[in-house]
Amino acid sequence: MRILVDMDGVIADFEGSFINLWKQQYPRQAYIPLEDRKTFYLLHQYPQELQPLAMEIISAPGFYRGLDVIPGAVEALHEMVNLGIDVRICSSPARDYHNCVLEKYEWVDEHLGSDWIGRMILTEDKTLIRGDILIDDRPELPGSDTPTWEHVLYDQPYNRAVGNKRRLTWQNWKTVLKEVLPLEQR
Amino acid sequence: MRILVDMDGVIADFEGSFINLWKQQYPRQAYIPLEDRKTFYLLHQYPQELQPLAMEIISAPGFYRGLDVIPGAVEALHEMVNLGIDVRICSSPARDYHNCVLEKYEWVDEHLGSDWIGRMILTEDKTLIRGDILIDDRPELPGSDTPTWEHVLYDQPYNRAVGNKRRLTWQNWKTVLKEVLPLEQR
Repeated sequence: MRILVDMDGVIADFEGSFINLWKQQYPRQAYIPLEDRKTFYLLHQYPQELQPLAMEIISAPGFYRGLDVIPGAVEALHEMVNLGIDVRICSSPARDYHNCVLEKYEWVDEHLGSDWIGRMILTEDKTLIRGDILIDDRPELPGSDTPTWEHVLYDQPYNRAVGNKRRLTWQNWKTVLKEVLPLEQR
Repeated sequence: MRILVDMDGVIADFEGSFINLWKQQYPRQAYIPLEDRKTFYLLHQYPQELQPLAMEIISAPGFYRGLDVIPGAVEALHEMVNLGIDVRICSSPARDYHNCVLEKYEWVDEHLGSDWIGRMILTEDKTLIRGDILIDDRPELPGSDTPTWEHVLYDQPYNRAVGNKRRLTWQNWKTVLKEVLPLEQR
């Protein structure tokens, strides 16, 4: 049983960290609170004149490395491994990869531990990666192949319009995955 | 038809670049010429007292980014794409990932072009990646799954002991792949 786990919006708090930096750097500018976020790409919901400011935050050195942990994520991933699940971190780097690729490795090293480096998979096309489940906050995962995995949505305000998929958070993941996996048999 | 292509020893000249740096930095020390290399990991063939010097070269900032292109590799990969093959770069970063991960992306960006960044897959376990062929210089590719791909060896002196696999170089790749793929029909 292999579970692929996305990073941003699933274990690394892209949205929360962005808002904190925005408030620090532009305290007089309005921002979109998480509960009002409707689009998968954060930039798409900001007015055009604010997009360069937002882009500057997310492409700055240290942004990806500095992302907060989504509460419960680290404990859940360690528990999955203890349950005998083959967990892999499966992430698509930003197109502007320069301040992203290495920092994703550093983030996993810092928050999950150096033995998790071997579990990292970076790919733009997740349909090429073999697994039973992909936990991802992105509404749709386009790619070349028909996935081997079931896409389980990590529940976020910006993906609530998706109705046809199982969804979970790190608060209820065991209950949700028990519908799919024989977790209790391990 | 998807071909996964490894980087070091296949498109990026790890061995040749190492020898050049060794000669520059330790001109009085002996080194192992490529034709005498017998082990997949270069360090394993150096005497223990020289291993720290070798390690210093391959873990230094700029080593992976500065690797020379293996002659013919870039032309072959572009030609594969023109033949309609779905080519992906499939590489396993060094355990000490710090000066490796980002530099592999930079190398591909510089030598293959920025539109190849989306073709990058970094993973320690290549058996998880779906493809028809993996071109790799490593004698064996251990992993969790039975691969979907056929491993075609990129011929190198240090993998000549492997007898049961197809092998190719960028000089004869089309002839070799024609045994497997209907290249001429495209």
